[in-house]
Amino acid sequence: MRALVIQDGNLSCRPSYPDPVPAPEEVLVQVELAGICATDLEIARGYMEFSGVLGHEFVGTVAKGPKDLQGKRVVGDINCVCGKCDMCLSGLSNHCRQRKTIGIKNHDGVFADYVSLPRRNLYVLPPAIENEAAIFIEPLAAALQIVKQVPIEPRQKVMVVGDGRLGLLAVQVLALHGGKGKVVLLGKHEEKLQFCEKRGIQGILLDDMIPRQEWDVVVDCTGSAGGFATACRLVRPRGKLVLKSTFAPGAAVDLSPLVVDEITLIGSRCGPFADAINALAARQIEVNGLITARFRLADGLAALQKAGEPDQIKVVLDTKA
Amino acid sequence: MRALVIQDGNLSCRPSYPDPVPAPEEVLVQVELAGICATDLEIARGYMEFSGVLGHEFVGTVAKGPKDLQGKRVVGDINCVCGKCDMCLSGLSNHCRQRKTIGIKNHDGVFADYVSLPRRNLYVLPPAIENEAAIFIEPLAAALQIVKQVPIEPRQKVMVVGDGRLGLLAVQVLALHGGKGKVVLLGKHEEKLQFCEKRGIQGILLDDMIPRQEWDVVVDCTGSAGGFATACRLVRPRGKLVLKSTFAPGAAVDLSPLVVDEITLIGSRCGPFADAINALAARQIEVNGLITARFRLADGLAALQKAGEPDQIKVVLDTKA
Repeated sequence: MRALVIQDGNLSCRPSYPDPVPAPEEVLVQVELAGICATDLEIARGYMEFSGVLGHEFVGTVAKGPKDLQGKRVVGDINCVCGKCDMCLSGLSNHCRQRKTIGIKNHDGVFADYVSLPRRNLYVLPPAIENEAAIFIEPLAAALQIVKQVPIEPRQKVMVVGDGRLGLLAVQVLALHGGKGKVVLLGKHEEKLQFCEKRGIQGILLDDMIPRQEWDVVVDCTGSAGGFATACRLVRPRGKLVLKSTFAPGAAVDLSPLVVDEITLIGSRCGPFADAINALAARQIEVNGLITARFRLADGLAALQKAGEPDQIKVVLDTKA
Repeated sequence: MRALVIQDGNLSCRPSYPDPVPAPEEVLVQVELAGICATDLEIARGYMEFSGVLGHEFVGTVAKGPKDLQGKRVVGDINCVCGKCDMCLSGLSNHCRQRKTIGIKNHDGVFADYVSLPRRNLYVLPPAIENEAAIFIEPLAAALQIVKQVPIEPRQKVMVVGDGRLGLLAVQVLALHGGKGKVVLLGKHEEKLQFCEKRGIQGILLDDMIPRQEWDVVVDCTGSAGGFATACRLVRPRGKLVLKSTFAPGAAVDLSPLVVDEITLIGSRCGPFADAINALAARQIEVNGLITARFRLADGLAALQKAGEPDQIKVVLDTKA
């Protein structure tokens, strides 16, 4: 099959990579559409020292598996877990000690014609969700994880920092759970802020922002050391700072505001797929307009480069094209 | 009066610094004994760009004030607050927007013959607490703040990282609130670990520690980037990391474990003086043996140097000597 592969730090689009061989309890899925996220760009730069097929956001069709799944349109949870370790047994299987993560750690990803996944990872899609919306289920689940970990209380003021792929989903989730009037998106790109303003959520350009420590909950979706510093300047003393994405180790970081202002920082990663599917099916979250470029799988390297450009939101790989 | 002063980054022990003039509602206190803490050493190196008299841990006698306080032995909260801002009015006066902090920010400190403090900051000491114990009230209050912010639940495993001044108090507080059998102190100094082992609390030398992410609550009292990295390697996924002391900005820090393992980091600073006084008066916390060097005020510069040596715990300045 065709696949976008990283090996020993080298990226390549291979025309004939070995087809995945499903392990017991695994299902073979033919990928139809895949999304590129910031983590993929980090991995392409060497993060996690991953080798194999890149990618973890996808929608596809079951090509080989149990009868009830055959031919079904599915998305899939990215963590392949053991079900036996202390984390799995205590209800924290996303933190499985032996987990493999597709396209990130010890498991081939989805920038390919096929991917093999444990059956329990798969979710059958309702017809209401088109492929172009379905590739947002994984990042939307990650955004929904914010309110699982930090319930938004009445009268709290909430700020999302970063108007990228994740920020535009996170701010919609927070508006849905906390009320539109209390959530603000801080970003650098006027056209991205307009996307959320069209939905009644206020956007503020970074250059227009006077930083004051007055926000009860600040969600950092920037994935940069500068964004983290901005978030620290906005959260009020004893407030909460949700860290959704991280940045390359080695960046100079000042943690003293966390101590002086007794801030609680909540690290947040993957989230509930079922909730994301429900929210999309009920049209509670808008993803129309977030796909800004579409590439053939064979042009995967160009797609990765495009995804790194500041004006892009979601770049997708179309394996059917 | 005599005073240990930092001005434009230069430290000096001055024989004739102007006596403080108490503002309305302020009380003049004659300092008897003062303690040197890590923050003082950071300020001596330029942290906070503070100018004035250094020091904030003290015990003294009221020299000039209302009748009921005259001649009384007192300790004092270090935050001088406005009582009017949004933080003060919402019960978070330690985070007063206009606060001055003695020896740290916009208010002369206690490495001097006299200090002037708002009356509401003062706590009269019971006779049961000697001066040599009283200078630990401020750092003990900071240690007690940990369990105010992060109540220890049954069956939780707790690790304190750092066997310095604060770590030795924090581990006692956590043993008091959580049970001796579940708290462990991780440090670099055998003799400091022995102090807590004498009280039935297990100590582990860093070199003997096999880092595993299995601790429910980890308290970082190291004040170093290396200590923070160690703490991140010990806290379990979805566990809590309490950051009690910070380090100079500019150090390279890897925040990705916080996101990947969805760790909650709780910044923690000053704490309840009344609780610290009660704990010391009831002899629930041992501070005997923690003073490792004693200097005259005139030898303040040598005292600061001594306090920076790794084998020292608490170095004190005796203004009566």
